[in-house]
Amino acid sequence: MARTQGSHSDITGPRVREAALRLFARHGYAAVSMRRIAAEVGVQAGALYNYTPDKQTLLFSLLQGHMAELLDALDAAQQSGPALARLERFVHFHIGFHLNRPDAVFISYMELRNLEPAHFQVIEGLRRTYEDRLEDILRAGRAEGVFDMADTKIATLGLIAMLTGVTTWYRPGGRLSADEVAGVYWDMVRRAVAA
Amino acid sequence: MARTQGSHSDITGPRVREAALRLFARHGYAAVSMRRIAAEVGVQAGALYNYTPDKQTLLFSLLQGHMAELLDALDAAQQSGPALARLERFVHFHIGFHLNRPDAVFISYMELRNLEPAHFQVIEGLRRTYEDRLEDILRAGRAEGVFDMADTKIATLGLIAMLTGVTTWYRPGGRLSADEVAGVYWDMVRRAVAA
Repeated sequence: MARTQGSHSDITGPRVREAALRLFARHGYAAVSMRRIAAEVGVQAGALYNYTPDKQTLLFSLLQGHMAELLDALDAAQQSGPALARLERFVHFHIGFHLNRPDAVFISYMELRNLEPAHFQVIEGLRRTYEDRLEDILRAGRAEGVFDMADTKIATLGLIAMLTGVTTWYRPGGRLSADEVAGVYWDMVRRAVAA
Repeated sequence: MARTQGSHSDITGPRVREAALRLFARHGYAAVSMRRIAAEVGVQAGALYNYTPDKQTLLFSLLQGHMAELLDALDAAQQSGPALARLERFVHFHIGFHLNRPDAVFISYMELRNLEPAHFQVIEGLRRTYEDRLEDILRAGRAEGVFDMADTKIATLGLIAMLTGVTTWYRPGGRLSADEVAGVYWDMVRRAVAA
């Protein structure tokens, strides 16, 4: 076997992850080989295995990393105070976070089907944890008497789908800034759940 | 070349389309060969070319067929009357139509990236036509004084994303019927756009 071009230290995790994310988003997980990821990073295929045991683990790690970053960032955004203010912050946070990561959002939805069952369970659990944060806000608002809805779980899933959908059409430099878009969405969300 | 197993008349369009849709949704367009689609249909690869010139045309035809069916079905659902009633019908229609076609919904989003530019333009045009139908309802409701929103285009995209999102979590036999789910969504939509 040919000696790998890059030394171990060249193959930093971030470079591998970045290349894999870009290629998976563009061509799909099943169509992208470890060899192709290695070529994108600029190393030989064998060298990738210093970083990850296989492509499945790499995919899982990308989706897990995305969800962990999302949950950390949400925790960092302050989530105390009245439910209405918390919901407004959540809307701006969710749109801002996802607009900056269109590839990760895309593969997080598209490649769920390619996760092995045990990996899928973990990612599903993280998604549910995130959904629970929003549902907590809706429940709190209902307890405060400022929100009213038939089903907090369905409201949660509906609002997340609506907000995440921004990534499918928003392009920087369009007629509205990301923050203005978030404002328009917040106006709809606020009314959708208002008592 | 080996003679194809099935006669031309065996390779009906619906069987090819059904197999391609299922395989694309499961493995992704790039990972599925014409040979694999032929095997799924139960014929030899060469026989597929009686039906479609290539895989790209097949993908385009699937996405185009999905959108054409969607627009036809929407036209068949009556769309006259007051805007509030039209919007309620739209919500039930959209959820009902998409819940019955999870694979088509999935590849219509996921495989846009794999359409050649000319094909992409056509599908984008059909999507816009569909969005315009909803935006017309929102504009009509605003003119009637029953709806109020900052931006009818963004409201349209937000509502469609929210409603289509049902396909990612709804499973038949769960705690709510499709119609009950549509009712919960309608309650949110109605309030989100109400004057």
